[in-house]
Amino acid sequence: MKSYMQEKLDTFKQQNENRARLLINCPDQPGIVAAVSKFLYEHEANIIESNQYSVDPEGGEFFIRIEFEAPDLKEKAEKIKQDFQEIARAFSMDWKLTYVDEIKKMAIFVSKEPHCLLELLWEWQSGDLMADISLVISNHETSRDMVERLGIPYYYIPANKDIRAEVEQKQIELLKQYDVDVIVLARYMQILTPHFVDVHKHKIINIHHSFLPAFIGANPYERAYNRGVKLIGATSHYVTDDLDEGPIIEQDISRVDHKDSAEAMKKIGQSVERSVLARAVKWHLEDRIIVHGNKTIVF
Amino acid sequence: MKSYMQEKLDTFKQQNENRARLLINCPDQPGIVAAVSKFLYEHEANIIESNQYSVDPEGGEFFIRIEFEAPDLKEKAEKIKQDFQEIARAFSMDWKLTYVDEIKKMAIFVSKEPHCLLELLWEWQSGDLMADISLVISNHETSRDMVERLGIPYYYIPANKDIRAEVEQKQIELLKQYDVDVIVLARYMQILTPHFVDVHKHKIINIHHSFLPAFIGANPYERAYNRGVKLIGATSHYVTDDLDEGPIIEQDISRVDHKDSAEAMKKIGQSVERSVLARAVKWHLEDRIIVHGNKTIVF
Amino acid sequence: MKSYMQEKLDTFKQQNENRARLLINCPDQPGIVAAVSKFLYEHEANIIESNQYSVDPEGGEFFIRIEFEAPDLKEKAEKIKQDFQEIARAFSMDWKLTYVDEIKKMAIFVSKEPHCLLELLWEWQSGDLMADISLVISNHETSRDMVERLGIPYYYIPANKDIRAEVEQKQIELLKQYDVDVIVLARYMQILTPHFVDVHKHKIINIHHSFLPAFIGANPYERAYNRGVKLIGATSHYVTDDLDEGPIIEQDISRVDHKDSAEAMKKIGQSVERSVLARAVKWHLEDRIIVHGNKTIVF
Amino acid sequence: MKSYMQEKLDTFKQQNENRARLLINCPDQPGIVAAVSKFLYEHEANIIESNQYSVDPEGGEFFIRIEFEAPDLKEKAEKIKQDFQEIARAFSMDWKLTYVDEIKKMAIFVSKEPHCLLELLWEWQSGDLMADISLVISNHETSRDMVERLGIPYYYIPANKDIRAEVEQKQIELLKQYDVDVIVLARYMQILTPHFVDVHKHKIINIHHSFLPAFIGANPYERAYNRGVKLIGATSHYVTDDLDEGPIIEQDISRVDHKDSAEAMKKIGQSVERSVLARAVKWHLEDRIIVHGNKTIVF
Repeated sequence: MKSYMQEKLDTFKQQNENRARLLINCPDQPGIVAAVSKFLYEHEANIIESNQYSVDPEGGEFFIRIEFEAPDLKEKAEKIKQDFQEIARAFSMDWKLTYVDEIKKMAIFVSKEPHCLLELLWEWQSGDLMADISLVISNHETSRDMVERLGIPYYYIPANKDIRAEVEQKQIELLKQYDVDVIVLARYMQILTPHFVDVHKHKIINIHHSFLPAFIGANPYERAYNRGVKLIGATSHYVTDDLDEGPIIEQDISRVDHKDSAEAMKKIGQSVERSVLARAVKWHLEDRIIVHGNKTIVF
Repeated sequence: MKSYMQEKLDTFKQQNENRARLLINCPDQPGIVAAVSKFLYEHEANIIESNQYSVDPEGGEFFIRIEFEAPDLKEKAEKIKQDFQEIARAFSMDWKLTYVDEIKKMAIFVSKEPHCLLELLWEWQSGDLMADISLVISNHETSRDMVERLGIPYYYIPANKDIRAEVEQKQIELLKQYDVDVIVLARYMQILTPHFVDVHKHKIINIHHSFLPAFIGANPYERAYNRGVKLIGATSHYVTDDLDEGPIIEQDISRVDHKDSAEAMKKIGQSVERSVLARAVKWHLEDRIIVHGNKTIVF
Repeated sequence: MKSYMQEKLDTFKQQNENRARLLINCPDQPGIVAAVSKFLYEHEANIIESNQYSVDPEGGEFFIRIEFEAPDLKEKAEKIKQDFQEIARAFSMDWKLTYVDEIKKMAIFVSKEPHCLLELLWEWQSGDLMADISLVISNHETSRDMVERLGIPYYYIPANKDIRAEVEQKQIELLKQYDVDVIVLARYMQILTPHFVDVHKHKIINIHHSFLPAFIGANPYERAYNRGVKLIGATSHYVTDDLDEGPIIEQDISRVDHKDSAEAMKKIGQSVERSVLARAVKWHLEDRIIVHGNKTIVF
Repeated sequence: MKSYMQEKLDTFKQQNENRARLLINCPDQPGIVAAVSKFLYEHEANIIESNQYSVDPEGGEFFIRIEFEAPDLKEKAEKIKQDFQEIARAFSMDWKLTYVDEIKKMAIFVSKEPHCLLELLWEWQSGDLMADISLVISNHETSRDMVERLGIPYYYIPANKDIRAEVEQKQIELLKQYDVDVIVLARYMQILTPHFVDVHKHKIINIHHSFLPAFIGANPYERAYNRGVKLIGATSHYVTDDLDEGPIIEQDISRVDHKDSAEAMKKIGQSVERSVLARAVKWHLEDRIIVHGNKTIVF
């Protein structure tokens, strides 16, 4: 599979060697688009895709994502970045320029339930998840086999709340060693410390089930079943210190009915988790997400 | 419109004059279906549609809904009911036999926002809601015009928590006067007393918005917006004493994204409320719902 | 209802008196966005929403729709249009500038089946279809009552293939008299002549059922039923000379199963037709559609 | 993975060793359900799930699928079958009794595009496809690696229309050797002869893309793109002599828009094909499908 994947990645890189993405947010004011598009034009960049959003055109925040192509991009990349500083200052921009062919390095954290991990591996195998899955870290041995068979390193780090600090220390070292860009919690059932979260701000993506109404606390599926809910949902979000309260990236639901037992609902919930997480991760990889306050703009 | 509707209702009644629905729940045990189907066969009833469900085939609860047709149904209706007592006793059944051509009489309660009322009126006009909308009760005058134009009586009963008892007294009298079978709270923003709810057990259908996660309390749309939710939902349920916690009949969601303002989300939420309520009401009218504990079986 | 609608329309107009939409398509080349956004900036217009699309960034076609707000728009409208000529020429643009508060005047054509007409009237009553429904033209009297009750003129023009020319002559006169901007064929079962279509190019919106696979010819629902299809669809498109082959605006489907008779499938199909047509019409009213060749770009 | 799968299969078999499914179709007449349910009751079988459907209660066809559980099922299986003959004769039934723990043996045929094969392997790995994937047959070598890694035999049989007879001869021998119950054409791009189809009547499941409208002939995605379709679909069906015209099992669609190139549409189409085929295969494995004429009843 690795070679099949490598081929896909190589083709992708080659096709995108002159492509970049510019993400900007700044206070809204007239002239932003004019300035940015003039800048790109003068640097011979052709806009491929452009999405923008104003919270409130009068005095709110402005967001834009531009994907562009420029001949010999790599050679003028530094100059583009430098030249852009001036515009950025003039409009008080937060901005980021990424190169499409710089494939992001991803770590996947998983506990016992493998469904989300399997989904990511599957999307990756299908060539639909353009990432370098650098390593998998787990507090269980369950998934070692299916990970290593694909040629991906698997690190077993037992964890519990008493040894949290040293566990996270080991994890942070591995993440540094592999120079990881994004961490996906694919049903990793350990709480992360504020320190760990701070170090990887807006770089940790989590997934959890969601219900209408919420069934907070133990046995949510049992209680959802007893209430006869008709929908089972899942939410993917960036991890912040406030547990499960970070900026939402994606949500979805699946219908259930009275015939679905609590166990069946759980399985359906896992299926929703899989697809919601996969979409959230893809959007992150494609630099489609801007975090603003406690919400996301997904272009 | 009234004449167009009357024509539809008449055709419907005529087509269904020999049709009935049998709804049963009882402790599960072998032989129930055998006994019931033998009974219907012996009474010359032909099964048109049959749905059943066992919570747990070994010692759980059993539910069945059978729609059947029998020649000269009205003449033997009484005998069928009498004869069925024996089976019902043998299996400790809760059961109900309804005639399809006995159109249910409905009261709609509404406050200021007309979207759910309008939806029900529209479905009714389209011939897709087979009910006799006997009256509309409101604590506002807003919707009088659109209701009366369709030939439906509109009762304005101002309401607030200080005069709740007398308000409900007036309402109960109207409901008796019109011999109402089902009450739909189409965004009626007054709390009902336990007394009112008791008198109309499993006959009051409510609708409210729902979020993932829940935003309980004031300004839910504002808070959902600030969290950047990607789904807006609605839940329809039977009203019990436990506010908004009764058995869920139907739920659905609609996608939103960052471009939707809190106000736009509210509008989208209203659209979901409309369709969810309409489906819940239709299923009730078709006797498709069995309430069991705090959940519904919807056949 | 008319007064309720009038109030909604007035509020809408007032809120949008300084808003306009600029739709452009032209051969793609670097600098288009830069030029247009600079132009708007210089005319004190603030971009509210902007969507663009390049068929193929290298030498293909470029499309953009910009919604903007400019103080005292009406006073400078003429100057804006005049000044824009220069840019339009430089980039060989097809372009259109519309004012959001200029509500479009709509004619609805209908035959016997009223479901699509009813949907449009309903959306209009709900304030979700910002059009002036100027008149309804029908070759049947069926829907007169429900149309006139809403204060909309209803013209009965009997039609058949032998008198097509004179029928269309009458229709064209009415459309001129009411200065109609868009014609919606809400299940109007008469074929239009090439002449009629030419006169109203890209201004006639049609709706028809669609199947997978197609069941071309007579009794499509019967044949779809016999084949056991699991989906029933509908397609809305602009009318061109090539019957039912014009640019598709919107499509959707609804699930069916073996329990749905051919008649039930037809009803489900009508429900899909209703919502697909309503969406297509709204997008047209909001100037969201650019026709290019035989396809649409819907922003 | 094989061991993980084996464990899942063993658990499944054990949990279902007393479960069976009875599928019946016969001319409708009063008393069928009464007779069958009495029979099961007398043979100590407890009904777990029951679905029925009458084309037309008066003189049409009747279909029923009953899943039941009976203690020591295997010991009395023969007697049940024998005893049932009498009822079957009385009502002129077509019927079939299957045991849930008799896992079906499946052959997958594939050509060059692996997406459907991968989906089936993935569902199988996840424990969601309860089949014994006995072998994969292909006219290409492309997928050998991913199949053999999972411990499944892979047979490469080059094929073209000139050697069709001998190719099918080899295939039939392999299918016999592995005692295969069901053949899935997972994008197998060779036409099957009437002989091959006859030998495996209602045992070959195919998948193909579908469009609204249909784009029959070459380059369907290119043409769909040029027409600006908004939906891309897929259809799974049993193979009959009439190419792609056999009884439809399942269909679904995915939305596309103008931004999707013909190539992107193809990818989206493949994604729909994957999920539609997987659902169709699962329903077949669970004996949920009755073929009647050229349509399916899916319970």
